[in-house]
Amino acid sequence: MMDFPHDVTAMRREFHRFPETAFLEYRTAAIVAERLSELGYTVKAGPEIMRMDGVRGLPSDQALNAAKEAARQAGVAEKWLDRMPAGQTAVCGELQRGPGPVLALRFDMDALPVHEASSHQHTPNAQSFSSIHPGRMHACGHDGHTAIGLAVAERLAQPDAKWSGTVRLIFQPAEEGGRGAQPIVASGLLDDVDIFLATHLGCQLPSGQIALTADGFLWAEKWNVTFTGRPAHAAMCPEEGRNALLAASLAVAGLYALPRDGQSDTRINVGLLQAGRTRNVIADHAYLELEVRAASSEGLQRLTEGARRTLEGAAMTQDVTVGIDLYGKAISANSDPAIMTRLETAVLATKTGITVRNWPIGGGDDATFMMQRVQERGGHAGYCLVGADIAAPHHSSLFDIDECALERAVTILTAFVEKTA
Amino acid sequence: MMDFPHDVTAMRREFHRFPETAFLEYRTAAIVAERLSELGYTVKAGPEIMRMDGVRGLPSDQALNAAKEAARQAGVAEKWLDRMPAGQTAVCGELQRGPGPVLALRFDMDALPVHEASSHQHTPNAQSFSSIHPGRMHACGHDGHTAIGLAVAERLAQPDAKWSGTVRLIFQPAEEGGRGAQPIVASGLLDDVDIFLATHLGCQLPSGQIALTADGFLWAEKWNVTFTGRPAHAAMCPEEGRNALLAASLAVAGLYALPRDGQSDTRINVGLLQAGRTRNVIADHAYLELEVRAASSEGLQRLTEGARRTLEGAAMTQDVTVGIDLYGKAISANSDPAIMTRLETAVLATKTGITVRNWPIGGGDDATFMMQRVQERGGHAGYCLVGADIAAPHHSSLFDIDECALERAVTILTAFVEKTA
Amino acid sequence: MMDFPHDVTAMRREFHRFPETAFLEYRTAAIVAERLSELGYTVKAGPEIMRMDGVRGLPSDQALNAAKEAARQAGVAEKWLDRMPAGQTAVCGELQRGPGPVLALRFDMDALPVHEASSHQHTPNAQSFSSIHPGRMHACGHDGHTAIGLAVAERLAQPDAKWSGTVRLIFQPAEEGGRGAQPIVASGLLDDVDIFLATHLGCQLPSGQIALTADGFLWAEKWNVTFTGRPAHAAMCPEEGRNALLAASLAVAGLYALPRDGQSDTRINVGLLQAGRTRNVIADHAYLELEVRAASSEGLQRLTEGARRTLEGAAMTQDVTVGIDLYGKAISANSDPAIMTRLETAVLATKTGITVRNWPIGGGDDATFMMQRVQERGGHAGYCLVGADIAAPHHSSLFDIDECALERAVTILTAFVEKTA
Amino acid sequence: MMDFPHDVTAMRREFHRFPETAFLEYRTAAIVAERLSELGYTVKAGPEIMRMDGVRGLPSDQALNAAKEAARQAGVAEKWLDRMPAGQTAVCGELQRGPGPVLALRFDMDALPVHEASSHQHTPNAQSFSSIHPGRMHACGHDGHTAIGLAVAERLAQPDAKWSGTVRLIFQPAEEGGRGAQPIVASGLLDDVDIFLATHLGCQLPSGQIALTADGFLWAEKWNVTFTGRPAHAAMCPEEGRNALLAASLAVAGLYALPRDGQSDTRINVGLLQAGRTRNVIADHAYLELEVRAASSEGLQRLTEGARRTLEGAAMTQDVTVGIDLYGKAISANSDPAIMTRLETAVLATKTGITVRNWPIGGGDDATFMMQRVQERGGHAGYCLVGADIAAPHHSSLFDIDECALERAVTILTAFVEKTA
Repeated sequence: MMDFPHDVTAMRREFHRFPETAFLEYRTAAIVAERLSELGYTVKAGPEIMRMDGVRGLPSDQALNAAKEAARQAGVAEKWLDRMPAGQTAVCGELQRGPGPVLALRFDMDALPVHEASSHQHTPNAQSFSSIHPGRMHACGHDGHTAIGLAVAERLAQPDAKWSGTVRLIFQPAEEGGRGAQPIVASGLLDDVDIFLATHLGCQLPSGQIALTADGFLWAEKWNVTFTGRPAHAAMCPEEGRNALLAASLAVAGLYALPRDGQSDTRINVGLLQAGRTRNVIADHAYLELEVRAASSEGLQRLTEGARRTLEGAAMTQDVTVGIDLYGKAISANSDPAIMTRLETAVLATKTGITVRNWPIGGGDDATFMMQRVQERGGHAGYCLVGADIAAPHHSSLFDIDECALERAVTILTAFVEKTA
Repeated sequence: MMDFPHDVTAMRREFHRFPETAFLEYRTAAIVAERLSELGYTVKAGPEIMRMDGVRGLPSDQALNAAKEAARQAGVAEKWLDRMPAGQTAVCGELQRGPGPVLALRFDMDALPVHEASSHQHTPNAQSFSSIHPGRMHACGHDGHTAIGLAVAERLAQPDAKWSGTVRLIFQPAEEGGRGAQPIVASGLLDDVDIFLATHLGCQLPSGQIALTADGFLWAEKWNVTFTGRPAHAAMCPEEGRNALLAASLAVAGLYALPRDGQSDTRINVGLLQAGRTRNVIADHAYLELEVRAASSEGLQRLTEGARRTLEGAAMTQDVTVGIDLYGKAISANSDPAIMTRLETAVLATKTGITVRNWPIGGGDDATFMMQRVQERGGHAGYCLVGADIAAPHHSSLFDIDECALERAVTILTAFVEKTA
Repeated sequence: MMDFPHDVTAMRREFHRFPETAFLEYRTAAIVAERLSELGYTVKAGPEIMRMDGVRGLPSDQALNAAKEAARQAGVAEKWLDRMPAGQTAVCGELQRGPGPVLALRFDMDALPVHEASSHQHTPNAQSFSSIHPGRMHACGHDGHTAIGLAVAERLAQPDAKWSGTVRLIFQPAEEGGRGAQPIVASGLLDDVDIFLATHLGCQLPSGQIALTADGFLWAEKWNVTFTGRPAHAAMCPEEGRNALLAASLAVAGLYALPRDGQSDTRINVGLLQAGRTRNVIADHAYLELEVRAASSEGLQRLTEGARRTLEGAAMTQDVTVGIDLYGKAISANSDPAIMTRLETAVLATKTGITVRNWPIGGGDDATFMMQRVQERGGHAGYCLVGADIAAPHHSSLFDIDECALERAVTILTAFVEKTA
Repeated sequence: MMDFPHDVTAMRREFHRFPETAFLEYRTAAIVAERLSELGYTVKAGPEIMRMDGVRGLPSDQALNAAKEAARQAGVAEKWLDRMPAGQTAVCGELQRGPGPVLALRFDMDALPVHEASSHQHTPNAQSFSSIHPGRMHACGHDGHTAIGLAVAERLAQPDAKWSGTVRLIFQPAEEGGRGAQPIVASGLLDDVDIFLATHLGCQLPSGQIALTADGFLWAEKWNVTFTGRPAHAAMCPEEGRNALLAASLAVAGLYALPRDGQSDTRINVGLLQAGRTRNVIADHAYLELEVRAASSEGLQRLTEGARRTLEGAAMTQDVTVGIDLYGKAISANSDPAIMTRLETAVLATKTGITVRNWPIGGGDDATFMMQRVQERGGHAGYCLVGADIAAPHHSSLFDIDECALERAVTILTAFVEKTA
């Protein structure tokens, strides 16, 4: 294998340089698989731990092949690529040591389609580890998550690590867009898990604090919307056209103006809009990608009803048709008190920080599907935020994390396993 | 050369099948050049008759190469492709015969980025000559114009054709978007022309009618507009974002709502809008292509002032920046009475139809730049509409012309030359 | 009667000072009736010449009483007020003199709810005849029309006036909003008219020019629109509200953005919007007054369909209901050539100006209902514009006319009667 | 005095029938003053306890006189009206009994400009105590607050009431719009208060629960906004107009679309919009009343900056001017723990319900200005919600409260005074 570092910060920087977006994490996943294998973990990958029925938004074959080829060029082993067909880039390393519970930790690996800032004050530039891929960036900290996962794997594989049972380290693709967790759940990988913990860096929690439960997940729906109208010469006969671009624009204005909700925090965003082809033709086509989120399922229902009416009303005004395609969903979840108590014990024992309860995450993470599955099957699940000062908000082009949080997270998670398994 | 038909209808259908958009008319231009050459015309092409300084909206190198390669695959002679570097696809054939005036006719060759309808009732489908290129279509009749030009070239080259002087047949690229005529004017090709005539089929003029002057050209400006904001996580911190997609949408609504003008017919269209990258990030970028048109330069000025304020106001609301790039201009022009009289004589002599005066074209044609140049240099210029029933409006995916108009146009233009030169 | 001047300019200024809006022209109508009576005309008024079935937009009883009382205070004779109940303020003076055709002239009397400008450069201020009623103004020249009508009445009543037949001078209320003409038509007053002429000053026609036919009337519909939603506390539970104010605002943006029409000049205006009651309640009510106009009935149909969809679509987005009430209609009409010829003769004979044909009026006048009725019954009808330079556009707060046009109009109309009757 | 009931429910219904909006509470205030006087309280009213400098939104003289006259007709004593000039309708009753602290309770009296629902299922209709004033309604429970205040006054005046010190019962006008408290604070009435408690019914807290602190007040600003454009004839020359109505509509759409805030709950509402005068004139004037609210002063600042940009951007698009007038502000406040403990004791002792902490009020109450003043001067202040099931949200036309809460509130407040003073 390529010469990949072992230090958690160095690993994070390596991952930062090669950001790979959802379902295209070939280089990252192959490095993870190779390292887990070297450490003695039994490695499963691809279809063994993913069932892709109903998965939405898979990249095109062209994009999949390009990502594989780039990973190949970067020197990863062909055998791992072979085991991950068609965007199935999940990796799981399992280690058994004596009797005890099955304990699973989740780490996500994907980057975002954000173009990294070129400012010299942006640490990845100053320290020369910024993205080599224009238009892609680790702007949510998953580079750190993957590095933490590998460092924890190494600690737990040490002979003197004090735990007994089964440890399963799950490296998930496509957390952004909320599409990678459900295929893993569908494969049954979570069905026998007794203890589950997912982790995220940052989320406005300052360095040195550990949030022991984050129940502020937002319910969400993600829609792809298409308006279809009728083209016409924009100067000779505009009245013959049916303007899909205008319908989409009116819809956007209306969507953001949906009422705030006194009972539930809400969010709405149209993140992509593409309409029309050329200047002198009334645009007959428009495409939007949007998401609606709310702190309760009732709030989400009110918001989706409003969004649907807004899209249909905008279509009506322009006499165009509108198609709404449900692209994804996110659910909320609660951490079990039992998990939280163990995590508090781990933080206390390792003197790694202050623990905080009920920090609102303010976003979503499809680890909630894993948590739900574990809890359904009688296990306990939790979600843990490891505080990390950030240079700019998540998903922004200047995002960067305080790297001190990396080692701290490794220590806490190792201790958590040792206190639990 | 490939086996290319001589019948004007068959030629039109061949061109219809292979639509090539602005500055990419390599196959079309090479066929034209070859045919003119075979007929004994002195052929000039590319840089000989185009000066490209300041030309906007040239396709990318990738697109240029792909178009050349497709033309090559279609069997055109390499020598013509060599003479047309970098989108310079204009072709001119000149024939001299005794003393007399210099007479130039203009034919345009480019297609549109419109996806041809798949309906069986659409004649190009029923008769199997619809576009082989998805997303491109001859939806404005330029396939017919090119065919008419070649047929006229053949008639005038006959020994018994009764004319004396110099005939110059100009095959122009990139009429759509109004970018192909000015480089030809800049080359000096029009400077010694005594008589100039441009021709267009259709334009709501019924089959059997010939409009002898079309002074209803609209003044126009074409703008490319960019909004630049700031990305942010759409759920965690939407307040940190500066939403370029929303700014663009509000601008679109405002642009179409610019006031109608009691003194001047006006048009406005945003034909393309692309904004944002991904669903859960506040979009930091939006790009629009729009055109504004008016029946007078004063009306255009009022409209452009309003459009500028609307764009800047929308940017202000979202705290984003906006850049407005002037992509192209169109001017109006008037036909000289002398030309019109000769054309009336030609129509009368050939019994090809009814003549109509002052038919409003309702759009634009950058042949007006050629007309202006000829008139500035002391020549006479005219613009002629040859009526043709159409199946659907210009630029629509169901556009098709009554092919009977093709032969009629050939007869009229040949007679016009014979009456004039 | 009050001491009212006889000079046409002085009369116009008196009317200008006391503007009275639609159906409230009590002072104006009473002055007109008194003067016509003094001149020997047989005067009809109110219900004798108006059938009010189906009339829309009558002022409230309170407003009607206030207008009557103000007229009373201004010194007009009670008997005329008694003859004009409930907004029926039309007046007609008829004079018969020997055999001959029945000839009718129309003059309109109503002012607008526009607040007159306070600038010293505004002539009515500089010359001290500006409106004494805040919020009301003669901003369309009807003060001049009424004055012209009375001056014409005086000329025709002179013993040496050379005409024979019946002259009927109709002073119409409520031209603005297009509601005053139809009740007069419904009364039968036009049924036996052989020759009809309506007159308007200004309309962008310069002083010294007379437009002999104005066939540019726009077809129109006038709508009153009500959105009804549901109130809610704007801070505690905005999600419970159904926002009629927002629906109305989105509708307004959409209405102005309805497509321009390549076949027909169009206009749209929302002239009044009232919504909501108080700041901290989601507004449950909104009311709009709008008009749509087009140069053809087909264009109007396209526009009204679009407007209806826009209103219903906006309502759908906010889950509110919308009610659309047709308040009024305007039709187009054409002047008869016979009338035009006579008017040209009159202008020529009196050396009062240059005649122009086909000047577009660019607006509407419900005199078209009178023209239509006369033409239906076999008579001839015409509409005449008397050019008058204006200080600012019609309906603006700085509107003012070149008063030289007044005497010119009196001369022309007198001559028209003498050439005709 | 008129025959006014003593039972708290009957009193509430009487107040419900005669709703009086902000600064017009003449009948209500006079009844309160009379009753307090009868009970032996020293009564202050009007200018004695209000300093009106800088108060915004006072009703017109006409409205003030009409309200006074209506109160007179309703039979209240002239002397009280004389003591409340120009909207100064505050009333304070003070009772002293031995040594002890100064304790003040606040009750608000004003109704809302909401039109009460006519449904038979609406209890005030079914029980015949609905509003006799069309367009005005007690839709926020202040009728109940006033009745509770009078009932508490009666209990505390009983010889066997167990308290010592000074009790001051403040009946405040104009809580809606947040304008009545500051003039009372400015008068110095709160300066010597040791213990202050304000009370509100409902606010989504169910019957039987008492919320002991409500720290969820929102910061707010209230703006009156004026757009000024230029009128023009909507058909002849729309391009000459500058459309204030359209600017306002675009602003409304933009205002509701201001981004949600990840750090602070926010609200925005445009509750009133009036624009234009008549259908065929481009509207040159628009007026909006809006409020912005946020859970933190930082959130409010972000929102007001966005709102200002939105208003200015919309004005720019239409080339109109915009004026923004700050009409009012609201601040947040926190209840003192000492007050909360006493209130818990009172609830416990009277077995009147369950106590809840930290119930979010989700709105505003300008009692916060009183709380702030008392706390500044070294006293303790609190805000108490008395749960009451409601038939429909606050400020809606179907709002009604569970009257069982009235007696419960009287008992609790009486006990609070007895536990404290």
